[in-house]
Amino acid sequence: LRAVKLQNGKLEFDADSPEPTVPVGSVRVRVLQAGICETDLQLVAGYMGFEGVLGHEFVGIAESGRFVGQRVVGEINCVCNDCDRCRNGHGNHCPNRTVIGILNHDGAFADYVVVPEANLHVVPDAISDDEATLVEPIAAALRIPEQVDLYPGMRCVVVGDGRLGNLCAQTLLHAKCEVTVVGKHADKLKTFQRMGIQTCLLADKEAILPAQLAVDCAGSSSGLQTAISLVQPLGTVVMKTTVVEEHSLALAPIVIDEIQVVGSRCGPFDKAIQSLLERQFQLNDFVSGRYPIEQFGAAFAHAKEKNALKLILKL
Amino acid sequence: LRAVKLQNGKLEFDADSPEPTVPVGSVRVRVLQAGICETDLQLVAGYMGFEGVLGHEFVGIAESGRFVGQRVVGEINCVCNDCDRCRNGHGNHCPNRTVIGILNHDGAFADYVVVPEANLHVVPDAISDDEATLVEPIAAALRIPEQVDLYPGMRCVVVGDGRLGNLCAQTLLHAKCEVTVVGKHADKLKTFQRMGIQTCLLADKEAILPAQLAVDCAGSSSGLQTAISLVQPLGTVVMKTTVVEEHSLALAPIVIDEIQVVGSRCGPFDKAIQSLLERQFQLNDFVSGRYPIEQFGAAFAHAKEKNALKLILKL
Repeated sequence: LRAVKLQNGKLEFDADSPEPTVPVGSVRVRVLQAGICETDLQLVAGYMGFEGVLGHEFVGIAESGRFVGQRVVGEINCVCNDCDRCRNGHGNHCPNRTVIGILNHDGAFADYVVVPEANLHVVPDAISDDEATLVEPIAAALRIPEQVDLYPGMRCVVVGDGRLGNLCAQTLLHAKCEVTVVGKHADKLKTFQRMGIQTCLLADKEAILPAQLAVDCAGSSSGLQTAISLVQPLGTVVMKTTVVEEHSLALAPIVIDEIQVVGSRCGPFDKAIQSLLERQFQLNDFVSGRYPIEQFGAAFAHAKEKNALKLILKL
Repeated sequence: LRAVKLQNGKLEFDADSPEPTVPVGSVRVRVLQAGICETDLQLVAGYMGFEGVLGHEFVGIAESGRFVGQRVVGEINCVCNDCDRCRNGHGNHCPNRTVIGILNHDGAFADYVVVPEANLHVVPDAISDDEATLVEPIAAALRIPEQVDLYPGMRCVVVGDGRLGNLCAQTLLHAKCEVTVVGKHADKLKTFQRMGIQTCLLADKEAILPAQLAVDCAGSSSGLQTAISLVQPLGTVVMKTTVVEEHSLALAPIVIDEIQVVGSRCGPFDKAIQSLLERQFQLNDFVSGRYPIEQFGAAFAHAKEKNALKLILKL
C-alpha cells in the first residue's frame, strides 16, 4: 500500500506500507484524496515531533460499519469517551486522544486511513470531493463563531491571505462582519477583493482602523504581533496559527489594552457540511493543484509557493 | 519642592522641583505617602519610555475642589471625557489619556501631585494611610472578577508571590476559589500559608492539578509561559505582568488547548475602598518598609529584594 511518511524530519514515499490494523469501533477508509495543510508544513518542520503517515484533511469510502460504501470525511481527534473532558462534551481536548496525521495516529496521505466510526460524517452527493476535502479546515474556521460573538458590522481583520485566512475571512463575511484581510501577496488579495472583502498589504497596515476582532492565520510567528497591533483596546484576537518555533514578541500591549487572546483549533464538521450544502463559501479558485500521491514532493513544494491555496493529493 | 524624577533612564532626587501648574478641573494633592510598584521598577528599566516624576500609588490631602482638606486617593488614568471610549464607559482606554506617573503625567513621588478632580476618591477615616496607598493595586486585583466569572471551588493558580500576586490571590480566595500560589521564595510563600492559601515552589509546579484559571503576576517574562503550562484546556490565563522586554515563548499550547489569555490592568477604586472597609484583605504583613522620600534609592533597592512586599515613600 502507498503512504507518505514523515520520518527523521523527512517526508518519504513508501510504496509497500503494511495493511493497517483496524481496532474495534474503527473503520478502514479508502482515501480518495487528501489536502495539504499549513500544519503539515509545520509538522515537517518539527512541530509536535510527529512521525508516521501525514494527512488529516481527507475524503474517502468507508469499508465497514454503518457507513459502509459511502463517501465520508472524518474528525481528526480520536478520543477515549471515558474521561471527564469527553463526558463534559470537550472531547476535542481529551488528554488520551490521538489526532489523525498529527499525534500518534497515521494520517490520510495513504491508500487507507483508520478512523473511529464515531468520527465519520457522510458526505452528501451535492458536495464534490474537493469540497469534502475542505470540510476539516472549514470546520476550523467555523470554530470562531462558537468562541466569539460575531455581529453585523463588527470590524474584523484577518492576518494572513492563505488557505485558512481565506476560510476565516469568508466565515466572518457570512456573519455580516466588516472584514479586512491583511496579507503579503497582492495576487492573493485579489481573490478576496473579488469576494467583496477589503484587503490591505501588510506594509500598509497602519491605515487600518483598529478592529474589534483580529484573527491570526499568518502561519508564522510574526502574525500574532500584527494581530495584536490591529485590535482596539478590549478587543479580541483569535489565534489560529500554530508554529513550531517560539514567538518573540512584546506582550505588554495585551495588558495595557486589556486584549483577549483566544486560542482556536478544531470545529464542527456538521456545520461545515451544512455550509457547503448552502454554498456559503466561495471555493471556485480554492484548489491550486492536484497531484498523484507519488508526486507528494512537487505538491508540498507547490503548497509553499506564495500564491498557492489548497493542494490535493489523489490516491 | 521635592520630587523623584526618572530622567535619561536614571532616578534622581530634585530638592528644588518647580510648583506644578493645576489645569481647570484638576486638584493639587499634597502627598502624604506613596507606594513603589513593580511597574515603577519596569519604568526605570525603560518600560513606556517614561520621563518625569514617578509614582502612581498614593494618598494625600486635596488642596482645592469639593474634597478640599480631605484625605484622597486618585485613579491614575486621566481621560478626555470626549472620545467614543470615554462616552462608552471605557475611559481607562481613552486614546488621549495621560497616566499618573506612567505616561505624560508627573506622579506622586513628590510633595504634590496634580490629579483631575473626577479621579479622586475620599478615604474614610477607618482606612489607614498604608491601606489607602494600596487602593490602586487592590483595585487592579479586583479587575479580575470584572473580567472573569469566578465561582466557589474554581481551581486557580497565581504565578508570582510578590505584591500583586498576593492581592490577586486574596481576591480569588474571597470569591471562595481554590487558590494555589506558585513562587520562587519559600519565605514569601509562608505568608500565603498563614492566610490558608495553598502554595507551591516554582520548581515543583508539575505537581499542581491543571487549573481553570491562572493569573500571571510574576513580573517577569517567564511568568506567562508558566501560567499557560498550569491551565487546563479551555481554561483562562489572566495577564497582569507588564514587562519592558520581549517575551520569547511557545504559544502553540494556547491554540492546541484553546486557552483564553485576558489582559488585565486597572480596576475599580470604589470597590477597593469598600473591600478595605470590610477588611476583606489581610494586609498586616504587607508593608515591608517606610522611607523618607530623600532615601528613595534605599527604598527602590529594598523593593527589589526577594522577600520585599510594599515599600512606602513618606513625604
